[in-house]
This record gives sequence, structure tokens and C-alpha cells, in this order.
Amino acid sequence: MNMYLTRIAAISLSALGVAAALGAEPSPGKPAASFEGTDTMLRPTGYREWVFVGSSLGLRYDEGEKPSETLEYKNVYIDPAAYRAYLTTGAFPQGTVLVLETAAGEEKREPGLRGSYQKEFVGLSAAVKDRRFEGGWGYFTFSEGPGKAKDKARPAKKASCYDCHRRKAADDNVFTQFYPVLRAAPKK
Amino acid sequence: MNMYLTRIAAISLSALGVAAALGAEPSPGKPAASFEGTDTMLRPTGYREWVFVGSSLGLRYDEGEKPSETLEYKNVYIDPAAYRAYLTTGAFPQGTVLVLETAAGEEKREPGLRGSYQKEFVGLSAAVKDRRFEGGWGYFTFSEGPGKAKDKARPAKKASCYDCHRRKAADDNVFTQFYPVLRAAPKK
Repeated sequence: MNMYLTRIAAISLSALGVAAALGAEPSPGKPAASFEGTDTMLRPTGYREWVFVGSSLGLRYDEGEKPSETLEYKNVYIDPAAYRAYLTTGAFPQGTVLVLETAAGEEKREPGLRGSYQKEFVGLSAAVKDRRFEGGWGYFTFSEGPGKAKDKARPAKKASCYDCHRRKAADDNVFTQFYPVLRAAPKK
Repeated sequence: MNMYLTRIAAISLSALGVAAALGAEPSPGKPAASFEGTDTMLRPTGYREWVFVGSSLGLRYDEGEKPSETLEYKNVYIDPAAYRAYLTTGAFPQGTVLVLETAAGEEKREPGLRGSYQKEFVGLSAAVKDRRFEGGWGYFTFSEGPGKAKDKARPAKKASCYDCHRRKAADDNVFTQFYPVLRAAPKK
């Protein structure tokens, strides 16, 4: 997977969404990411009560891939503890989790209404800052095809996500250039 | 003002954003909206740690107004207590506050990157469900022109916001049809 590049198959994550919504904010001191074994990440829950940092539409780096025909919104969340640390220190602490939830974009061209909005959710990915991963960040996708999402995921190959994040993202592998909420944080 | 229709002048709310980000989540039992006197609303703080319900791009009902040339993202948040109540009961409780934060859309058409993302914040509005307002909802805008936002606002005229919300919004004056996070909630 490629956190910001991959076209994710249109799958319905609505039911998962409710579960996510009802999940609790991570308790103070409890890591936002849960792992099975060394590096298999369990699908995050409760992230819809995390801090939203920005949404984009159809934003992607094309690297030889054919552009998708339907545009997708990408909603990005950060876990609340990492958000507060970033506001205070200007750096992402160990254990930072960013969740990318993708929604199909629906264009409105009916009389009196124009623009686009977010229809059903179609994909879920996560990035985790942790020294256990080569380069300090691990990337995971939980999207698995129409109507399905994985309960857990193995880290993506370095070339699939990490390399582009390292090259293109403004701050420590995070695309803060696209996240106005994080850009509003005090500078380091 | 018209919560979903008005083109808001491009103003910078970055400094306010930091204040908003550092604000605390409303304490349990404390109303999410604060008023001066009967119905003058104080600008909400801390809303970036509320629950994000959806983002749209250029979405608006045109009612004889000339379409704007630059597209704006509209990020909508709900206060956490109202969100949890909505998930449980399928209804918005008294005191529900929705905040609409508007960001300028920046189109990327550089080599290898396309799509659009959210640049600086340019507007802030709020809707409050409260019996003190005619029809049960009050609407407020804190946008005041380039680089400025009001510390407090008087309710908008009924024809400016309420009437369209009443006619067009799917659930109790709220445009849940555009908010996938709320649509994922169990039905009443």
C-alpha cells in the first residue's frame, strides 16, 4: 500500500465506522497503536474521536500510475496525546499514530446545489512512529476489498509508503504541508 | 450569514486556530456553547479537539448568488457530548454545537502531484441547538474580514441560515447527508 498514493478499492466500512466511533480515546499512558507480536498492527478503533488534521480531495503523487477516475477524500486524524505533544514541542513523539480514512467523493450537480461531499468510507490506513520500524515509521493498510477490512495488518514494504513519505512530507514523514491544523501549531 | 452558502472573505484565522487547538474539551455537564446575555455567542474554543463529521469542497446551495471562483473546504465538527448522545439516541440533544471551519482550497497541478488540499483557514461559524432560538436552532458567524474574527456574534437572521437548514438538511436542521461520520450512527 502507499498511504497517499494508492487507489483503494471501493469498500464499505460503515459498520466498522460505528465500532470505531464507539471506541474510547486511548487512556493516558496507553499507546494509541496496538500490536500482535512484534509488528502486526491491530486495526485502530475510536479514531473518529481523535484530532482531525485535514482533508484533501484527489490529492496524490502520481508515479507512473494511471490517475483514478473517481476522486477520493482523504481524512487524516492524529491520536490526541501526539497532537498535544506536537502543539507543545513541535515534534511527533514516539508512538504517534496517524489514521487515514478514505471516503468516496460525490459530486453534486443538481439544480441549486454544486460542489462535492464525502459519501461512504472506502479505506483505512495508519502510520505509526516507532523505533521498531526501519526509518522510524511503519505504514499499514486495513483495506482488503469490497465490503471488507482486515482486523490486523503487516507493515507495508518500505518502498510502498516510507520512501515517498521520507522524500515528500514536510515534517518527519508527515505531510504537514497539507494539514492546516498541524501547520497552525507553534514552530520548533 | 448563511452557514453553508455564504462566501466568506479570505481571512487568516491561524492565530485563533492555535488558541482553539489549545482550548480544552468542554467539561462534562458544561455547555459546549457560551453566551453573553441572552443570545450573544462567544467564539467557540477547543473545537479542533471535537469530533470531525465531514468535509466538503465547494459545496453550497446557490440561491441567485454568483458562484465563487475559488473553492473552499468546509470542515464540520460536533461537540463530543452531542456526538455520543447522537450515536446512542439518534437525536441531537439540547445544547448541541456544530462548528463549521472553512479553509481555502489549494489546487496542486505540479509534476507528479495533483488534487487539492486545505490551505489557510478563512472562516468560522457555529450552529447551536437551543430552545432559546426561534425554531430551536441559532446560527452564528465569527468571520469578520481579512485577518479578523469576532470574539462574539449575534444570531443570524432566520432567513439567512435557519430557513435553508430547515428545508434542505436531512436530520433536524443538520446536513447529515453530507457527514459520513454521523450517517454511520445507528438509526433512531
